Amino acid sequence: MTTSESVGDVTPQKAHFTDPLMLRSGDVLPAYELIYETYGALNAARDNAVLVCHALSGSHHVAGTYAGKPRSEGWWDNLIGPGKPLDTNKFFVIGVNNLGGCYGSSGPNAINPASGKPWGADFPFVTVDDWVTSQARLADLLGIERFALVLGGSLGGMQALHWTLAYPERVRNAAIIAAAAKLSAQNIAFNEVARQAILSDPDFHGGHYYEHGVVPVSGLRLARMVGHITYLSDDSMAEKFGRRLRHGEHKYHWDVEFEIESYLRHQGDKFAGFFDANAYLLATKALDYFDPAYGFDGNLKAALARARANFLIASFTTDWRFSPARSRELMYALQHNGLSVSYAELESVAGHDSFLLDDPQYHAVLRAWFDGIEVSA
Amino acid sequence: MTTSESVGDVTPQKAHFTDPLMLRSGDVLPAYELIYETYGALNAARDNAVLVCHALSGSHHVAGTYAGKPRSEGWWDNLIGPGKPLDTNKFFVIGVNNLGGCYGSSGPNAINPASGKPWGADFPFVTVDDWVTSQARLADLLGIERFALVLGGSLGGMQALHWTLAYPERVRNAAIIAAAAKLSAQNIAFNEVARQAILSDPDFHGGHYYEHGVVPVSGLRLARMVGHITYLSDDSMAEKFGRRLRHGEHKYHWDVEFEIESYLRHQGDKFAGFFDANAYLLATKALDYFDPAYGFDGNLKAALARARANFLIASFTTDWRFSPARSRELMYALQHNGLSVSYAELESVAGHDSFLLDDPQYHAVLRAWFDGIEVSA
Repeated sequence: MTTSESVGDVTPQKAHFTDPLMLRSGDVLPAYELIYETYGALNAARDNAVLVCHALSGSHHVAGTYAGKPRSEGWWDNLIGPGKPLDTNKFFVIGVNNLGGCYGSSGPNAINPASGKPWGADFPFVTVDDWVTSQARLADLLGIERFALVLGGSLGGMQALHWTLAYPERVRNAAIIAAAAKLSAQNIAFNEVARQAILSDPDFHGGHYYEHGVVPVSGLRLARMVGHITYLSDDSMAEKFGRRLRHGEHKYHWDVEFEIESYLRHQGDKFAGFFDANAYLLATKALDYFDPAYGFDGNLKAALARARANFLIASFTTDWRFSPARSRELMYALQHNGLSVSYAELESVAGHDSFLLDDPQYHAVLRAWFDGIEVSA
Repeated sequence: MTTSESVGDVTPQKAHFTDPLMLRSGDVLPAYELIYETYGALNAARDNAVLVCHALSGSHHVAGTYAGKPRSEGWWDNLIGPGKPLDTNKFFVIGVNNLGGCYGSSGPNAINPASGKPWGADFPFVTVDDWVTSQARLADLLGIERFALVLGGSLGGMQALHWTLAYPERVRNAAIIAAAAKLSAQNIAFNEVARQAILSDPDFHGGHYYEHGVVPVSGLRLARMVGHITYLSDDSMAEKFGRRLRHGEHKYHWDVEFEIESYLRHQGDKFAGFFDANAYLLATKALDYFDPAYGFDGNLKAALARARANFLIASFTTDWRFSPARSRELMYALQHNGLSVSYAELESVAGHDSFLLDDPQYHAVLRAWFDGIEVSA
């Protein structure tokens, strides 16, 4: 058995960038900040760096804890640490909060230097491309010419994929987990419901709710509830909740009858208590727009021809948000380009959220593949 | 080829009931009205009557048109008429709006005789059981002791199933289409999102919006949008919309980018323009509560032992709201009780909504089964 432990207490850092960032939308971000964390040490050859890209509601806080804060483990703490599948004794791991997020990087809830007020709805649209560009600048700042590995799950996996296309020479390996090469109409539809819930909340105030001292709680809550349904599988909901009644019998009221209702409301309330609505909106749009084949007449194989990395593609049997079929589509398109692709289709009842869980088979697959990545001593 | 035609112009009728209706919730409806339509003629033996039960947003207007109103075809007009699969030359067909609905039967948007104002949130919870009881009283009124057939799709199918359990001697045949013996946790979860969207709309006013001269449009619109996603299949959305762009290119705005967004908004707006929010809430609760096995420790086989009808169970391959597996579960439980069950699992890309569509294979199955039902000359 490998002994694995936490990376321990960590402290986020901030990087300031004053080179304007030309965004995909045509807008320009004159200056910006990125908040990030690192775990492990960059080796002398600078060839052991790993970038972890986060999903819709993730952050730069990927592993470790914050001093004095109980239960402050990073969102992928089960994967990353000394002796863990992504071993920080070997790798220098970086987590970064994406632009437009709400955890400390420049985003709608941060101060717009031009106005001295929160950006709010004035924060520009950001895309996966823009995130990758900004992450590359952070890599420059940290002296990392080439990543040993870029990885992520879901929207994070899309960033990892885009890294291999935007900077093919800067990524040796990419792990793309529970992701897809683009959203389906159904995926976009769910995002649209979430957006309309927020945009139609009277407390949204056109995205300038900060100035009104309110938060579009109802909209954000609904957005998270509908999102949450798509993160879980039908099976896992059946297993966890089924038709279990709160009071043991039908009460015929609008309060919680079935435990699944309580769970969803709780998830919605919790999320609405800390996440920024504008940041949520922007992240859903980044998801919608992501499509490497967009400039290639929808030809994914042609779009991926630039890639040079070795790939690990992983999917989960009960993930209906980004099903295994979508991962296989990506795998075939990469293989068509003569690239090295390992593919793991993992049994799991947990649906899309499986990528965050500590499943032994899943982690064994990742560990074996990460162990095979060569780095200098 | 069979020549089939419309039943032509139809006129709804209203039945008044003054016997109090004891509801499953324990509440009592002192008096109530049911609005209904009939097509074809009741034969002398009174053995050719068919009851069509409607789904979540359906009505008593099942077939035919309203004089002078273009595009006023009933919701199952493609199925019912002279020479159509459910042939009104043979059958006497009844459509009835359920209690708690909003098309003319007693419901939240109707006047509460006790107050002289719309019932609003004071209208009691109604269940599938209650609907069936009220439909049986309508059958009494119309002099129908026994139905040749009770049928419905989705929530309508649940009513047909309950008919065979509540009044086993009054149903010779039951067709249960695109339905399930109960909602799953995921089904309930989607309903709960829809409810929370309506309940949290400031214009809902605790269900008494009529008095405020407003309608909870935003909530109802969101409820319909999320519902609509579950009515279509991933495949049919991909086929109809895919990632087709409204403007041919990414515009980076909050207006419609992808055609699927436009479609969903349109469906939501349209629905919010005519359907009653309280009625929608009540119908989702009726769905949630439906569970014949509720009083049988979850044992569906035991729950169905009372049934005497012949059954047709039909499901659609791409229906993920009530998947074929759920129909098969029902079929096995009925067969376990020695009942005659025909089962059709139909190829369709259209998802749950398939039961409303004019698919040749689907209609051929129904026609053949309906043709086999014996009625007196």
